[in-house]
Amino acid sequence: MGFKAVHYTEVKVEEVKEEGFEGITVRWLISKEDGAENFAMRCFEVKPGGKTALHSHNWEHEVFVLNGKGKVRCNSIVKEIKPGYVVFIPANCPHCFENSGEEVLRFLCLIPYKK
Amino acid sequence: MGFKAVHYTEVKVEEVKEEGFEGITVRWLISKEDGAENFAMRCFEVKPGGKTALHSHNWEHEVFVLNGKGKVRCNSIVKEIKPGYVVFIPANCPHCFENSGEEVLRFLCLIPYKK
Repeated sequence: MGFKAVHYTEVKVEEVKEEGFEGITVRWLISKEDGAENFAMRCFEVKPGGKTALHSHNWEHEVFVLNGKGKVRCNSIVKEIKPGYVVFIPANCPHCFENSGEEVLRFLCLIPYKK
Repeated sequence: MGFKAVHYTEVKVEEVKEEGFEGITVRWLISKEDGAENFAMRCFEVKPGGKTALHSHNWEHEVFVLNGKGKVRCNSIVKEIKPGYVVFIPANCPHCFENSGEEVLRFLCLIPYKK
């Protein structure tokens, strides 16, 4: 519950088993377990051909793309993403991500704790 | 104030002019202007030899290193950082970053709005 500085690959990786999520893992890089009370940093990896379900919730996403290429949908808008892309998905906006390339699509996705 | 997907270099870059900060620019990638009410995503670039002042405040930092190499200090602990490093700096912990390499040190640094 204090200062932390580690490589992201040192953080435990978990498979995402929610319905409609295919080929996806997550690492909770910074969370309440570290003492982060306001928001959490997760790193997702989507295998080639993998995708998240089109889903919605009452909290926002702040995303930064690290590797690979893919598509992000929010309502009816679809945008292509690649490394260096920043994505803001407002609360209550139906959204999904898919890997449209041949490498792993890796991105940071941060969410608030307070809602 | 809605869905946003842009490359980080499309976001306006500003020089950080605070005392003790040398060779540093910032881009506010996701902020209140985008409708982000809970936390903000900034991207900092520190030139070779550049550094931030040793400073402290009552909010935390969640950091992800994108490029270059450097050192981060929190209280008396100093750690080396490079791409892929995740750093959590708790609130009220005196801290600073410095570029110890020959390339730009680039990192995301997220902060909460609610305090």
